[in-house]
Amino acid sequence: MAAGQATAIAPANIAFIKYWGVLDSELTLPTNGSISMCLDRCTTETHVRFEEGLDRDEVLLDLYEGVERPAEGRAYERVVAHLDRLRAMAGVNLRARVRSRNSFPADAGIASSAAAFSALTVAGAAALGLNLSEQQLSVLARLSGSGSACRSIPDGFVEWINDGTSTGSYARSIAPPEHWQLCDIVAVVDVGAKQIASEAGHKLAFTSPYFPVRLQEIPERIERARRAILERDLATLGEVMEADAISMHTVAMTTRPPAFYWSAGTMAIIQAVRRWRDEGLACYFTIDAGPNVHVLCPVESAAEIEARLCLLPEVQFTIVNLAGPGARVVKVS
Amino acid sequence: MAAGQATAIAPANIAFIKYWGVLDSELTLPTNGSISMCLDRCTTETHVRFEEGLDRDEVLLDLYEGVERPAEGRAYERVVAHLDRLRAMAGVNLRARVRSRNSFPADAGIASSAAAFSALTVAGAAALGLNLSEQQLSVLARLSGSGSACRSIPDGFVEWINDGTSTGSYARSIAPPEHWQLCDIVAVVDVGAKQIASEAGHKLAFTSPYFPVRLQEIPERIERARRAILERDLATLGEVMEADAISMHTVAMTTRPPAFYWSAGTMAIIQAVRRWRDEGLACYFTIDAGPNVHVLCPVESAAEIEARLCLLPEVQFTIVNLAGPGARVVKVS
Repeated sequence: MAAGQATAIAPANIAFIKYWGVLDSELTLPTNGSISMCLDRCTTETHVRFEEGLDRDEVLLDLYEGVERPAEGRAYERVVAHLDRLRAMAGVNLRARVRSRNSFPADAGIASSAAAFSALTVAGAAALGLNLSEQQLSVLARLSGSGSACRSIPDGFVEWINDGTSTGSYARSIAPPEHWQLCDIVAVVDVGAKQIASEAGHKLAFTSPYFPVRLQEIPERIERARRAILERDLATLGEVMEADAISMHTVAMTTRPPAFYWSAGTMAIIQAVRRWRDEGLACYFTIDAGPNVHVLCPVESAAEIEARLCLLPEVQFTIVNLAGPGARVVKVS
Repeated sequence: MAAGQATAIAPANIAFIKYWGVLDSELTLPTNGSISMCLDRCTTETHVRFEEGLDRDEVLLDLYEGVERPAEGRAYERVVAHLDRLRAMAGVNLRARVRSRNSFPADAGIASSAAAFSALTVAGAAALGLNLSEQQLSVLARLSGSGSACRSIPDGFVEWINDGTSTGSYARSIAPPEHWQLCDIVAVVDVGAKQIASEAGHKLAFTSPYFPVRLQEIPERIERARRAILERDLATLGEVMEADAISMHTVAMTTRPPAFYWSAGTMAIIQAVRRWRDEGLACYFTIDAGPNVHVLCPVESAAEIEARLCLLPEVQFTIVNLAGPGARVVKVS
């Protein structure tokens, strides 16, 4: 086929029930299912163009402020490996120019790899003329190594299911974005904080004595979270989501060596959210593998809660999200 | 016997391996053994005087600044119940005047009940002319309901052992204070913060799915901590102590309902201690059922670490302790 190009947009997602622990790191098969929401305001736009005459892939990252930087080292290699996967499927040998831009600050500590690799998957596949189902795209995004990228393919509220095989480990939509006007407010407390790579965390999980207990808890949490989403039951979703976040960080803090993702600001928000809830304000926290806190609340109280979050001295800025669409092609030629 | 009086001083103690979970709350029998150090700078001095003509016990608390306040409510009742225990043993019916004073701010959030009830036990027994062994005093202090009070009876580095009976649940010294010049720096972050009573925490522990795992971990930790103390091996003691503190708070955060003792300041110190250690400074954290952090370090680096702690904006003040003697009578008549 001829050289093609395409642009895709894909969202970051916030997990209500976390992916933590990898069974097979070659295939990125997780130890457990997970449930998430696509974030409408935290997206990556990626342009992929396969060209004659390039002797290597070129990957440019636009770091939010219009400053472009070539991807390097491990980040570059992961992109190339993923392009190789797509090229192999299409039987194409051309190198590509990739340009990627986030809608949110790159140093915000928001896990952006899910958005990045789902956008790359969808743009790359479109540019190569591959006609793939949502399930196939989700499997492919997962194989990038950023497992949660598979959850950024479908729309809205999403579940990552697993049957033990690679083709059976993919995400599907539980409900579309418009099903529920639920807000996820990202409260950024540590801009540019050094992170412990979640890749390492997924492998270390097995060294925690609490990990087997967590795995036992997950199936019931998945059931409860799925039902709570379908019934728009924030109290149940919030309770289950907080318990799962604590359980994930409990595992992280008890691995050998332990991983402490929380900072002072993390704890300040956890305590504030609990206090506000005691005051009657419906809001619930969750925390990924980093210090920032996501606060879930009904859209009606988002302004109030965002204002309160911004008054906390530890909070640098916030991003208010609703559920959004999954990865989609916006231009192809 | 005639009316008598006595004054005793007793230390607070910091647990390296925590007491968390009560098997029998009537007898205050713990789910697990624990190991601690008596703090030489955090003490309670208690005067008890049994008198003719009093129709009720009088309990005055001197709140550090010379301001005296009568004990009220549950606090008062616990003192009276403990005096009743002592009176029953001595066959004495007289009411008492109790006056108690802490060497540290009452609002510092330092668990002061261990110091208070061990001082009350020793002063009360002496005032009544009871001739009790250290073991008997430790059992008695435990029966006050503040279980860890039993660890404030013996000197220095202490282990609370259990054989399943009440008389076999007491603390004994592992090593005297002069065995090891180890510093415990209390970093107070939340003065007067509202606490979740640890009494409630001990009962709730069983609702955490992680509690059984914690209990399995304890025996090996006890062994390692005891040996580390005997060998003055701070690296091992520190590692085991941090793991145990995280494990206790993991249990607390996963009970139903969950108990979050940590504040922003707690997390700031945890992260700082880990950073300083990466820089080569030997220091380790532990946290009781509250937000304050205890930092363990060799006496040689205590000044440096105290200075660094005081530079953290979240730290209000510090108290530097060495291992101290247990409860002792200072005056009897």
